[in-house]
Amino acid sequence: MVSAVIIDGTASNGIGKALANEMKLQLINIEAKDLPDGESYVRIPKAISNKIAVIVQSLYPPQNKHIVELLLIIDAVKSLNPNKIVLIIPYLAYARQNKRFMTGEPASIQLLLRLFKCAGAHALITIDPHKPKSLTMFKGKVLAIEPIRLFSDALSAYKGKAVILAPDVGALSKAKALASLMENKFTFLEKDRDKKTGMISLKAGQNFNFEKLPVIIIDDVISTGSTVIQATRFAKSHDASKVIVVASHLIMAGDCYKRMKTAGISKIIGTNTIPNSKALVQDVSKLIAENLKTILDSL
Amino acid sequence: MVSAVIIDGTASNGIGKALANEMKLQLINIEAKDLPDGESYVRIPKAISNKIAVIVQSLYPPQNKHIVELLLIIDAVKSLNPNKIVLIIPYLAYARQNKRFMTGEPASIQLLLRLFKCAGAHALITIDPHKPKSLTMFKGKVLAIEPIRLFSDALSAYKGKAVILAPDVGALSKAKALASLMENKFTFLEKDRDKKTGMISLKAGQNFNFEKLPVIIIDDVISTGSTVIQATRFAKSHDASKVIVVASHLIMAGDCYKRMKTAGISKIIGTNTIPNSKALVQDVSKLIAENLKTILDSL
Repeated sequence: MVSAVIIDGTASNGIGKALANEMKLQLINIEAKDLPDGESYVRIPKAISNKIAVIVQSLYPPQNKHIVELLLIIDAVKSLNPNKIVLIIPYLAYARQNKRFMTGEPASIQLLLRLFKCAGAHALITIDPHKPKSLTMFKGKVLAIEPIRLFSDALSAYKGKAVILAPDVGALSKAKALASLMENKFTFLEKDRDKKTGMISLKAGQNFNFEKLPVIIIDDVISTGSTVIQATRFAKSHDASKVIVVASHLIMAGDCYKRMKTAGISKIIGTNTIPNSKALVQDVSKLIAENLKTILDSL
Repeated sequence: MVSAVIIDGTASNGIGKALANEMKLQLINIEAKDLPDGESYVRIPKAISNKIAVIVQSLYPPQNKHIVELLLIIDAVKSLNPNKIVLIIPYLAYARQNKRFMTGEPASIQLLLRLFKCAGAHALITIDPHKPKSLTMFKGKVLAIEPIRLFSDALSAYKGKAVILAPDVGALSKAKALASLMENKFTFLEKDRDKKTGMISLKAGQNFNFEKLPVIIIDDVISTGSTVIQATRFAKSHDASKVIVVASHLIMAGDCYKRMKTAGISKIIGTNTIPNSKALVQDVSKLIAENLKTILDSL
């Protein structure tokens, strides 16, 4: 097998280093700086000729900066004649703009995947990319990792003793998977828009009463927090004993954390795809390592 | 001829509108917002099917944001089935990283040009892109505009009465062109590094004394101002009566303006490729219009 090296990008949140440790691979820290005029400078300071270059770069805020830096890193890596280039993008920005919802919009994530390929990437691993199907646009090997197992481990105290709640229909499969691992019940909320007033209310598809059980709300991303806060209010008003929120990616922009706390969410669990000091953060490095082995074997 | 529409990007500094007025073309203002999580949203709200779409987007700071937004705009435009896509990028970021100066660096501008093509652009017009030769990497029609005529017009009072100074050898051709238009003398400075101390000093290639004439320093970009400030000190200490600085692109990061003033620069002249409230700014729209006509005729 061709040997691989891990190249730690400008936004890896420690995952590059953990991955290199886990897989006993060489770690290359890139040289990076912000130039005085606002441009980004990157450089790969080591030879990687004929090796598989595994670039670790998460696309958390500032997303646009981290995207351009990833493209620059790919270009720099490519110039060093690696055997192949594998991207590990723990948080894939723009994944929610997976199609043109209105005429005249970009299909942002499809564009990004095309650009990564165009810059020189051959394979891609990411964590919970909103709609895994949209990754098929990437012309190369691609793997989307569900970190549900990490949440199940972190929530072991609630095994068989809580209800898993999807805050909308989009999160239903996630709730189902977590419930199955934890041997818990699950349910979901549907958004109901009043045609006269335009007000949005929530209704549960089943189990309208949480019977004084803890409720675990699961989603892919917490961005402003609005979705999980709405769901928390629903749970609290339907006899939840407490509310825990789990999500793969914790953006938690602005005053999101404060608003979540005020809404009475007792615990927030996520992963280290995005830096976050306020939640219980699970390390995705081992999950990535398992999947990276599969990709490396297939190249 | 196929009709064209001007699409005003998220960073056109008014050039899109001026260009549409000048050429009597339809102007489309894009819908754009920064989403709460930090991603950029853009949308083209009008039909452009079968027309030549001319996107105006300058890549001034924050460069990385404006680059990603340009790529998103190209993708959105492409989905509306235009006849062709022409990019007008008044200030082309990363133009100074036109090659790999050290092993392991990206060739940033070559990458960007590849990405614009990959996203869907067919032609490109830009202003004074540091090394026009690097634009040949763009697989499509490409035009680089020299705005020297605008500077010569703005400096008409100094015709035949000043010395044009290139602050380094790289700016020599620019100084020569301006001197020729203005019927002035010109000279240039060379950087001289002391092998023992590492100190950089400047020396003029010819005309070591400015004979109490005004000195007009010309460069392509003013970024931190260091280059023109050094040249100003040289000019002042070699009998310049006053120093005027002209440059196509005025980034002027941080305390650049204050430092330029302190160094005794009496006037700064640039263009509107980058927003700047402190300098005398010349509008490049007419120059772009002339060149856009050429491009449109050739498509």
